[in-house]
Amino acid sequence: MNTNAAKQFPQKTFINTQDIPSLIISMECAALDRWICGDPSGFLEICAPDVVYFDPYREKRIDGLENLTALYKELWGKVFADRYELLNPLVQVIGDAAVLTFNYVSYVGEAEFRWNCTEVYRRSGDSWQIIQTHWSYTQRV
Amino acid sequence: MNTNAAKQFPQKTFINTQDIPSLIISMECAALDRWICGDPSGFLEICAPDVVYFDPYREKRIDGLENLTALYKELWGKVFADRYELLNPLVQVIGDAAVLTFNYVSYVGEAEFRWNCTEVYRRSGDSWQIIQTHWSYTQRV
Repeated sequence: MNTNAAKQFPQKTFINTQDIPSLIISMECAALDRWICGDPSGFLEICAPDVVYFDPYREKRIDGLENLTALYKELWGKVFADRYELLNPLVQVIGDAAVLTFNYVSYVGEAEFRWNCTEVYRRSGDSWQIIQTHWSYTQRV
Repeated sequence: MNTNAAKQFPQKTFINTQDIPSLIISMECAALDRWICGDPSGFLEICAPDVVYFDPYREKRIDGLENLTALYKELWGKVFADRYELLNPLVQVIGDAAVLTFNYVSYVGEAEFRWNCTEVYRRSGDSWQIIQTHWSYTQRV
């Protein structure tokens, strides 16, 4: 470890010692805060070039940031919610991988929409990037 | 490395040097071969105690092998298919984590059923175990 670098950049040291589950959940929520305002770029900014993606509206997996960007451009300014909740978010950490799973509820007026979500994050230097996203509908009770 | 141990247990050495994506896909297919014959135990045998699980029929994430076993016991002898296909299986390896994604098609008589699937495997010694499963419907074209 280059201790001089650590002294020069205390923020870097802070990031390295941060609690990984809290960091991953805060990254997800920061992206969702923008998502529910019609802005998918919060997710695009934290996706890796080799990200893969599932949602209920595609006939097959979307491969790569370029293809995901093209898809999200179509959604720009079209997805809105008043608020959302992550139910029981869980982060399973395996070295430089972190698997975030949660049930998601978005509220739009009187309506609510329930989802299952799996995000896989990969550490890249001091930051984390999404390499896999899977959104699907939760069975309504 | 203990080379004596490697000499005494050549199979162990073989497993360690096996191509990870091929190994993960072969594990998934071995479990699916039993799954389409009504036997979910192939999956239960390779799941970790802390496995989490989504499918389209639950109101929330299933947590832990005990709860997943209870669910699969209900499905025992009820899920059958003539054959299946994994479309474009991809394995993203991050150290001791391997993220398998694919589109899945099962064929039952004249009918076919299409799914999105994400499996996260974690290395445990010489073997790999599933820690996250997410099945959802693929949009029909």
